[in-house]
Amino acid sequence: MRSKLKITEEIIESVNTALYDFEKYISTNKLKTAYTYLISNGGKRFRPLMVNLSTALFTDNHLMSINQSVALELLHNFTLVHDDIMDKSPLRRGKETIYKKWDDTTAILLGDLILGLSCKKLKSGLTPEQGMKAMEFFNHGLVEVCDGQAFDLEFEERDDITIDEYKSMIDKKTGSLIRTSLVIGGIVGNATDAEIDKLSELGTELGQAFQLQDDLLDLIGSNKFGKKIGQDIIEGKKTYLIITANSLAKESGHISLLKKFYTNNGLEEDEVEAMRTMLIDLGVIDKVKALIEIHFSNAFDIIRNLSQNNYADILIEILEKYKNRVV
Amino acid sequence: MRSKLKITEEIIESVNTALYDFEKYISTNKLKTAYTYLISNGGKRFRPLMVNLSTALFTDNHLMSINQSVALELLHNFTLVHDDIMDKSPLRRGKETIYKKWDDTTAILLGDLILGLSCKKLKSGLTPEQGMKAMEFFNHGLVEVCDGQAFDLEFEERDDITIDEYKSMIDKKTGSLIRTSLVIGGIVGNATDAEIDKLSELGTELGQAFQLQDDLLDLIGSNKFGKKIGQDIIEGKKTYLIITANSLAKESGHISLLKKFYTNNGLEEDEVEAMRTMLIDLGVIDKVKALIEIHFSNAFDIIRNLSQNNYADILIEILEKYKNRVV
Repeated sequence: MRSKLKITEEIIESVNTALYDFEKYISTNKLKTAYTYLISNGGKRFRPLMVNLSTALFTDNHLMSINQSVALELLHNFTLVHDDIMDKSPLRRGKETIYKKWDDTTAILLGDLILGLSCKKLKSGLTPEQGMKAMEFFNHGLVEVCDGQAFDLEFEERDDITIDEYKSMIDKKTGSLIRTSLVIGGIVGNATDAEIDKLSELGTELGQAFQLQDDLLDLIGSNKFGKKIGQDIIEGKKTYLIITANSLAKESGHISLLKKFYTNNGLEEDEVEAMRTMLIDLGVIDKVKALIEIHFSNAFDIIRNLSQNNYADILIEILEKYKNRVV
Repeated sequence: MRSKLKITEEIIESVNTALYDFEKYISTNKLKTAYTYLISNGGKRFRPLMVNLSTALFTDNHLMSINQSVALELLHNFTLVHDDIMDKSPLRRGKETIYKKWDDTTAILLGDLILGLSCKKLKSGLTPEQGMKAMEFFNHGLVEVCDGQAFDLEFEERDDITIDEYKSMIDKKTGSLIRTSLVIGGIVGNATDAEIDKLSELGTELGQAFQLQDDLLDLIGSNKFGKKIGQDIIEGKKTYLIITANSLAKESGHISLLKKFYTNNGLEEDEVEAMRTMLIDLGVIDKVKALIEIHFSNAFDIIRNLSQNNYADILIEILEKYKNRVV
């Protein structure tokens, strides 16, 4: 049994090789250049790890689903390239985004093209039955992730978002592709329908955990994540923290701070500290930490119940590292 | 046997009903409204006719592939919605385009979403083997159509496009979805691989014929197609007519007119007549008319060789109507 590091490296290298090789399917020079820039822009290849390790839970083979990993990584990149235009994000992982470095047209077309290439890759090496199943989940994931983005944009204009609505949005926007990765990995590994259901649940738990972590890291994280502390609060993002605070606040000071946040679509930099104090006072920070703990704990239980092989240990070890970002 | 009119009406009505019904799969109100606006915006439903009639050539059933028709019509609309942003087209069929009536974000997201829904619909009612085959051609068509758009944009910045390059571009941009429609119709009708190849050829012939017609109609068409005569020449579009003229011109008057066209990216309205005269003098108009005639004639031969049922007659009758737009 190779070490965890060796195995994750092998997966990531195989996926990267396949991703670079894909450049040959792109006909025009501008899009070739933009594609290579996009995939060389780092990225943790988290979804490929989920696809391959999910397959390995059932097959003891962690390189069996590289084609499907490439498909999922391209699908993920498609969403990033288009979302960056819609969200007007100039930077991603410290480098200019595609629409910013080139233009909207290049970003729209590159996104469309890599989605097309992604669909092509998905069925590689699968039986017709596996292929149909994989397409079903892949298409569902694609629609969900578009829905999630649509809700996220709609929420920017609304002040009455409930916790359930927020959870449903992040389930689609963040959870969906993690769920799809795990499920498709399972399909390649010939998991049973019951096991596929469990992989789907696993994706849902992880999606919630990661988004809550992101929301929390905005307030307690360090600069290594590339974002200023309190940026979400300054930008007026209605995160889980804010929505929960809004449902709990009773003191007039808290109510007026939240009202200010909602009315002005965010606060000034020197008001971030007051917001943080309020979130601590209301117990929101502790609540979110506890929730993250629960989601990860559920995730680990699901993995242990699905498989007891070494890949289950590796998957848990990788996720532990993510968990330790905040709790 | 029902009449041609009755049959095309039945196909179009069934597709329209399914398209309107699809609104339920869209979660947010803004996108629901934009989707309904998009599909109610007329359109000839040409691709659905090709899908269903292609199936009917082999099955005598013209309503068998409605699901696949919906998929192709959505794929076509996805390309229109995104292309309109890239080409900055404010109007389509006399109504404001999606990005113009709403904004870029709505148009990008609506396009992505209907592509996702399109993929979901494609496999409905197919066996795994048919589904895998249909996905293969569908994905290939999607990649081709993106490639075609990429080349079209690249060509705007180039003055040295050859006739072969132009033909390859229109084959991808116009031919691809017609070819995909016919092939997928054939797959639903359990056409043999040899028959699928012929359907693919048919799509290629029709794609070339339609694009040459479009290029020609710009100069000799009437206003009923919603475009001013000579608009392509004013806008500097390097159509088949121009590229052919450029390869034939020897007289200094012709050469200088073409040079002016290329240098200024188009001509003034009062210079359109000079360009038309030149195209007639060089025999380009006659050449294009003859080419259109050949492509349609090849298309009719392919259909007659594929099937002798009444649907073959109907398909030819419909295409005759298109042919008579110019030649």
